[in-house]
Amino acid sequence: MTSLHPFDPITPSEITLATKILQAAFPGVSLRYKKIDIFEPIKAEVVPYIEAERLGKPLPAKPTRLLQVLFHRLDSGAFFKGLLNADAKSVVYVKELPKEIQGPVDTDELLAIEALCLSHPAVQAEISKLQLPQGVTVCNDPWIYGTDDSAETRRLFQCYMYIVATDHPQNNHYSVPCKFSPVFDGLTHELVRMDYLPTTADASVESETQPWKPVETIQYAHDLLTESLRNDLKPYIVQQPQGPSFDVRGNEVAWQKWRFRVGFNSREGLVIHNLTYDGRSVFYRLSVSEMTVPYGDPRAPFHRKQAFDVGDVGFGITANQLSLGCDCLGHIKYFDGYRCDSKGNPVLLQNVICLHEQDNGLQHKHTNYRSGAATVVRNRQLVVQMICTVSNYEYIFAFIFDQAANIELEVRATGILSTVPFDNEKFGTTVPWGTNVGPGVMAPFHQHMFSFRMDPAIDGHRNTVFYQDSVPLPEDEKNPYLVGYTTEETVLKTSGTAETSVERHRVFKIRNDAHINPITYKPVAYKLMASPSQMLLASPKSFGHKRAVFATKPIWVTKYRDDELFAGGEFTNQSKGSVGVEKWVARNENVENEDVVLWHTFGLTHNPRIEDFPVMPVERVSVMLKPDGFFTKNPALDVPPSTQAFNKSTLHPEASACCSGVKL
Amino acid sequence: MTSLHPFDPITPSEITLATKILQAAFPGVSLRYKKIDIFEPIKAEVVPYIEAERLGKPLPAKPTRLLQVLFHRLDSGAFFKGLLNADAKSVVYVKELPKEIQGPVDTDELLAIEALCLSHPAVQAEISKLQLPQGVTVCNDPWIYGTDDSAETRRLFQCYMYIVATDHPQNNHYSVPCKFSPVFDGLTHELVRMDYLPTTADASVESETQPWKPVETIQYAHDLLTESLRNDLKPYIVQQPQGPSFDVRGNEVAWQKWRFRVGFNSREGLVIHNLTYDGRSVFYRLSVSEMTVPYGDPRAPFHRKQAFDVGDVGFGITANQLSLGCDCLGHIKYFDGYRCDSKGNPVLLQNVICLHEQDNGLQHKHTNYRSGAATVVRNRQLVVQMICTVSNYEYIFAFIFDQAANIELEVRATGILSTVPFDNEKFGTTVPWGTNVGPGVMAPFHQHMFSFRMDPAIDGHRNTVFYQDSVPLPEDEKNPYLVGYTTEETVLKTSGTAETSVERHRVFKIRNDAHINPITYKPVAYKLMASPSQMLLASPKSFGHKRAVFATKPIWVTKYRDDELFAGGEFTNQSKGSVGVEKWVARNENVENEDVVLWHTFGLTHNPRIEDFPVMPVERVSVMLKPDGFFTKNPALDVPPSTQAFNKSTLHPEASACCSGVKL
Repeated sequence: MTSLHPFDPITPSEITLATKILQAAFPGVSLRYKKIDIFEPIKAEVVPYIEAERLGKPLPAKPTRLLQVLFHRLDSGAFFKGLLNADAKSVVYVKELPKEIQGPVDTDELLAIEALCLSHPAVQAEISKLQLPQGVTVCNDPWIYGTDDSAETRRLFQCYMYIVATDHPQNNHYSVPCKFSPVFDGLTHELVRMDYLPTTADASVESETQPWKPVETIQYAHDLLTESLRNDLKPYIVQQPQGPSFDVRGNEVAWQKWRFRVGFNSREGLVIHNLTYDGRSVFYRLSVSEMTVPYGDPRAPFHRKQAFDVGDVGFGITANQLSLGCDCLGHIKYFDGYRCDSKGNPVLLQNVICLHEQDNGLQHKHTNYRSGAATVVRNRQLVVQMICTVSNYEYIFAFIFDQAANIELEVRATGILSTVPFDNEKFGTTVPWGTNVGPGVMAPFHQHMFSFRMDPAIDGHRNTVFYQDSVPLPEDEKNPYLVGYTTEETVLKTSGTAETSVERHRVFKIRNDAHINPITYKPVAYKLMASPSQMLLASPKSFGHKRAVFATKPIWVTKYRDDELFAGGEFTNQSKGSVGVEKWVARNENVENEDVVLWHTFGLTHNPRIEDFPVMPVERVSVMLKPDGFFTKNPALDVPPSTQAFNKSTLHPEASACCSGVKL
Repeated sequence: MTSLHPFDPITPSEITLATKILQAAFPGVSLRYKKIDIFEPIKAEVVPYIEAERLGKPLPAKPTRLLQVLFHRLDSGAFFKGLLNADAKSVVYVKELPKEIQGPVDTDELLAIEALCLSHPAVQAEISKLQLPQGVTVCNDPWIYGTDDSAETRRLFQCYMYIVATDHPQNNHYSVPCKFSPVFDGLTHELVRMDYLPTTADASVESETQPWKPVETIQYAHDLLTESLRNDLKPYIVQQPQGPSFDVRGNEVAWQKWRFRVGFNSREGLVIHNLTYDGRSVFYRLSVSEMTVPYGDPRAPFHRKQAFDVGDVGFGITANQLSLGCDCLGHIKYFDGYRCDSKGNPVLLQNVICLHEQDNGLQHKHTNYRSGAATVVRNRQLVVQMICTVSNYEYIFAFIFDQAANIELEVRATGILSTVPFDNEKFGTTVPWGTNVGPGVMAPFHQHMFSFRMDPAIDGHRNTVFYQDSVPLPEDEKNPYLVGYTTEETVLKTSGTAETSVERHRVFKIRNDAHINPITYKPVAYKLMASPSQMLLASPKSFGHKRAVFATKPIWVTKYRDDELFAGGEFTNQSKGSVGVEKWVARNENVENEDVVLWHTFGLTHNPRIEDFPVMPVERVSVMLKPDGFFTKNPALDVPPSTQAFNKSTLHPEASACCSGVKL
């Protein structure tokens, strides 16, 4: 029996164990591994275990430790999915997947395609036509191919090419996109096609590769800036002389009245498991389940640009290995993760999750105006953060917990716009679906659509999702002054979807009908402060839409089933259509007082500003979960007051009289 | 000639000067002062002055320094508005105002009404019926009366009464509302009526005052809590060993590339004047111009509860005098203000505005996945903050500036819910327009509607407001794959209103058509990241609606005129209807390439949670202004990198092997 907790991430020895089990199952066959990871434990097995933990009772048997493997046979190229029992060291099943299923991109594959592309004679021929000067070369970002043909079964990569100087590791190649773009077969390594990109608003005009006319590049790295750096920013240091207020044991975190386990897997990266507050269950599991980034540029081949950064690649795989003092201030705890390489060896992903406290201004304040006496409490927060680099873009995901029992999912988009070549030298040359960001370079409009998966456990696992709208009272004798308003409640009784509504101040809540608040007389609940967003713009007839149905509705409610974790479905890469949350709601199951899952799709319609180039100031989106009748009063009342003795602030010295005279 | 800057707040000597000028104008008449403040200088006079400052040219003559006074003659009670020339020490005009106009509440008046109420025999008689035990007394919050009668011309106050223990200055009287509520004439000091509040959902059932049955009060002050305080919160200290990055001279602030003047007046409190970035004009003036808080409880007298916290009282008047180390961390600069008392004496308002820096996580990051080389820049911000206590509620207003030329208006609502008595002892007793928050006490639904007034100067004073919607491209031969999308632009050519639209991702922008960005080929612009909110719920036929027309549309655009600063009109107290932004847009003026003003109404529909009692965890709303084609690239590129040498973070010590074994 393993000494691991059921929610612990995969260990290197488990990765090695998986390869041993599979090699034994495929004697003499060479296997190429795409993914070896934990398989989310079966909920029915876990709940008794974590309930015993929560209540301090004797622990029952641990859930079976399951591992999931995606791999190819090198002889046939066939693609398999396997489920292994790590306790019994045995195969539960191994399935060969249909030919049209493409697995996600893995790190070794990405690097191999990148190298293949640059060394291919056809690409070399194009590069030589550029007649690049000394010290300038070409690099490429292999892109997930996307979908525009329901008959396609090859594994394809579209390589976008860029001109880049070789004198610095952070030269911004996105500033100089090339006008040719080869497509490769990822399995046979054949060149499928050389695309020539449109460089005017007219999609039909392709340009042959011409000798490159050097342009001024737009750089983001400090070393490469032409301007000098600001010299008037003074240090700002967070000191925690008594250490942090959190306590970490393995992957279990205790902070103030919160307890949870930090999970990590190659697909979602950071996961929050078994979140309790003051000993009460709140959420079983929280994660960003999928995201899609469809581009609005209608010209081929850009019409296929639609990344699924969770399903196509994985936030665990792309999570940054963080450095002390760069990404967070104060006292920092890091968590590591592991992935496998293509040979099945464990690869350490060091410092991929960080944990730290932050101060977020005031939590509550009241001054009694008669006495002047004030109660002031600051808003200390605990941040669990992951930063993912998906080629050009960065996403910063943070789960933020506070002392008033609020949970925030904050997403910050930064990094570099995905650019395309564009002949914009003539004054006034623009396209209606993008922004010129430099000479010869344009950034097309696109959307970032996230799916936040919330598996609630509001004082237990039988919960109900409903929404409340604020509406005027009828204009009758009970509302004689016509100012009255009330709420209208709609219960989601059957698995399905719902719309957000700003006009009606629609608020979604999750309640436990078996637990009634003794003062409000309403069931205990948490509310979702959703982020109402424009949904997917692609036509319902397009592949872009069919592949990302989760991004067409802001709210989905499903009845829990094991192995339904990903809103866009298990395999998104080159998918012809999604097999995700839209299929699961279609079961029309009862979701009232059931084990329900709430999915919130939100996002950014990102029509680039030129200020987003060459690296984008963070664009922040926030979704919150707040107790609503879960407690009988403000749960942060017992947070100590904010005092100078504790906070040690500094008073700005006043200018002397003579100096203050100077200004006028 | 004064040595003051045109945007400087009023000084004590100017307050004294104003009383001298008026006493001379009203010889032998006793005057009661309600307000003595600066009158916003005439824009046509200021612009040449601040333009010369900006360009470092010789300064022209200063604008006339104007003072505004509201006062009563004590002999007749007549109410006057006066405009004075502080340079010439002369009266510009003095106008007697119509009888139906009520000025705002002033501090002395509020305290006088409070005392009057408690000492009135009819109130004393009711109090005696309560048969309160030793150590328990009654206090009252005099409320702005509101409006339900178009013929009313008296100045009225509705006093809401509460039972409160006398043993601590922070006893929470809002936990024990009384069932009687006297109404007083604020000028004659007569008792107009004794209201008996409904205490069931049926508005017609009033209760006679009965002996009080003691209930458990719900306290917020640390001294009064029954539970012990958390003892596991460790200090979190912000150190700025080299001092702050800002430079303050008088009320002028320089920070990074921002320059502005901190304004202060008794009505709006904090105002941002003449905001420039890197020497370029951005905004002439930013302020919260009005807010209204209408309640949704339909029962008399609660139907009249509709505070206009700016117009009825004033954020300057109610601004907290802040304490070092309580409201902000780090290195803090405070600004003082002045108001007058009823005799015309200057009253110092110490530390009513604070200025400090904060760290807000990452500003931008990119990792080149090939080299692993990362560029990381933190998001240092400058916060200018004011905290206002309006009886029960607190509002925290902060203008937040960052290094990427973004401007944020952040509003945090905290403080205490306005409560009413409610007979909720029987299980299940609720109302459809409020939340039980304790025994015998209910918090009605209400809205907080803010008006953010933005007077832009995007590279100059002739600007145009427009909005862009993101919409699918037509399904034609130019969009063969049906994924293309574009933006549709609508220019507000004539003063008027507009709606927000989440579905269309509507973005409002302010541009200068005379300045074309050399790369995007579009006019330089700032965009408003609005906060789409439910608008006013009160019926258009109600006084609640007619008095707050500004709160019925999210976007208003007017042509600038002096003295049009307040969205709800100059006099909101007991107004029968507003004379504000809705009148100004009705002029149907050209606002394309004109001196325009943009007003954004946003807010919170606040259906209280029980967790919002007895003091409310902050509810945060944010509106942002971001450059959009104002620069030719990310303006924060020159911010130095985030490094451990600069930030001095601390690594969490890892548990030793033996200890980490213990956990499992």
